[in-house]
Amino acid sequence: MTKEQILENIRLKQSFLCVGLDPDMAKMPPSLRGDLFAFNREIIDATAPHAIAFKPNLAFYEVQGARGYAAFEQTVAYIRDHYPDIFIIADAKRGDIGNTSRMYASSVFDTLGVDAITVAPYMGEDSVSPFLGYDGKWVILLALTSNMGSRDFQLVADAEGTPLWERVLTTSQQWADSSRMMYVVGATKAEMLSRVRELVPYHFLLVPGVGAQGGSLDEVARHGITRECGLIVNSSRGIIHASSGEDFARKAAQKASELQAQMAQLLAYYEIL
Amino acid sequence: MTKEQILENIRLKQSFLCVGLDPDMAKMPPSLRGDLFAFNREIIDATAPHAIAFKPNLAFYEVQGARGYAAFEQTVAYIRDHYPDIFIIADAKRGDIGNTSRMYASSVFDTLGVDAITVAPYMGEDSVSPFLGYDGKWVILLALTSNMGSRDFQLVADAEGTPLWERVLTTSQQWADSSRMMYVVGATKAEMLSRVRELVPYHFLLVPGVGAQGGSLDEVARHGITRECGLIVNSSRGIIHASSGEDFARKAAQKASELQAQMAQLLAYYEIL
Repeated sequence: MTKEQILENIRLKQSFLCVGLDPDMAKMPPSLRGDLFAFNREIIDATAPHAIAFKPNLAFYEVQGARGYAAFEQTVAYIRDHYPDIFIIADAKRGDIGNTSRMYASSVFDTLGVDAITVAPYMGEDSVSPFLGYDGKWVILLALTSNMGSRDFQLVADAEGTPLWERVLTTSQQWADSSRMMYVVGATKAEMLSRVRELVPYHFLLVPGVGAQGGSLDEVARHGITRECGLIVNSSRGIIHASSGEDFARKAAQKASELQAQMAQLLAYYEIL
Repeated sequence: MTKEQILENIRLKQSFLCVGLDPDMAKMPPSLRGDLFAFNREIIDATAPHAIAFKPNLAFYEVQGARGYAAFEQTVAYIRDHYPDIFIIADAKRGDIGNTSRMYASSVFDTLGVDAITVAPYMGEDSVSPFLGYDGKWVILLALTSNMGSRDFQLVADAEGTPLWERVLTTSQQWADSSRMMYVVGATKAEMLSRVRELVPYHFLLVPGVGAQGGSLDEVARHGITRECGLIVNSSRGIIHASSGEDFARKAAQKASELQAQMAQLLAYYEIL
């Protein structure tokens, strides 16, 4: 999927919402008996009208072993078949030596057929570049994450005063431009989005942490929005587990619709038409 | 598995060899038709007498989707059933926000039943600590990797002159001691193992990069060995794909046996008896 297609979908749906498909068996209605795909199918149908992207995180599938991995495959195939305009992100945070990253890239792009994968930067260029060799596919590189542990290494400054997360942004721009790379920047650090935008003015940012993790959508837009929107904002638990009862899909649709309405207002306010 | 049990196996087998189970379908004999588990079973039986650990890398299984994931599960179960003294490492390089890392930890320790997982440090303490809550299970944290890209971020020094990989070693020692944490240090950086040993004198190190990636076993031992051995040295391609013909298992046994013989000499030389 190209950057232009993503922007077209944002305009069409008046939304830059990504729904995180991280189903927690303990929060699913008992009638589903832990069937991840059955749960996802209802969530997808309920929220697709309000979203431009889905982001299943592999951890929530691998916990069921090969059966869970199959549910991941079914989920991707279902979205692809029924909602071909939706951008599918495998949230995997992979990254390994070159020949291993090539295998991971083939896993997600050839075997699964998703549009994008999240990648961890610790091992540097040759761990990331194998994911960049696919036309129309995207790397979403971790830069500044929304969790407490981001302080341990990401915020540490080098001899020139540059924190690691900024170095990740500047160094990785030598590997690919904004047509095949995006960055993860957590919403709990919204005020730092202004600095992010100085460094990567044209890249899309995947922003997790709105909702359950406490980030504010207005703040994210204020500091991070661009003329091409440039934002894909993710909400997982806040949508898919808004209810743990039989009404989970209806409640998920409601939460997604509320976020979409806020996003439509922001797109109008910032004149991204 | 405890540190004492690992050391006992090292003494018993006179080996600190880990065989990397990273089967590349293109390098397997055609008769196996890409059957990862069938390949692994022969490799495991052929090399287990010479090795104390096996390290399957998930990338090489996920490339076949759910079927490959099932082959990973079968591989782990086969080792567990037939060679219960072998230390099994899921080479996964995972790491995510806390509730997601908890899912990954459950995936590898509860569902798969391996002894250890490799984890990437970029997201900091709360991305690693969920893996540390299992008795007898291990985190093997990436510190200094063997690839070119390690220069991009790992070798960058902070304002006090401390490179990132050293900070990872020192900071992470506050999270767990040498009874449940190990570190990945690439063999292509053998001379830096002396510095590693100043910082983590008692931890086991998982050392990839001997063989195909060019590291020297003698150099690794000279700079990295401790009185409790403290080393698990991995070889993947150099053993499992020593031959791409029908004699692959015999050739793998031969390569593993050669490395084991070298290791026995080193254990004797350094008086680890």
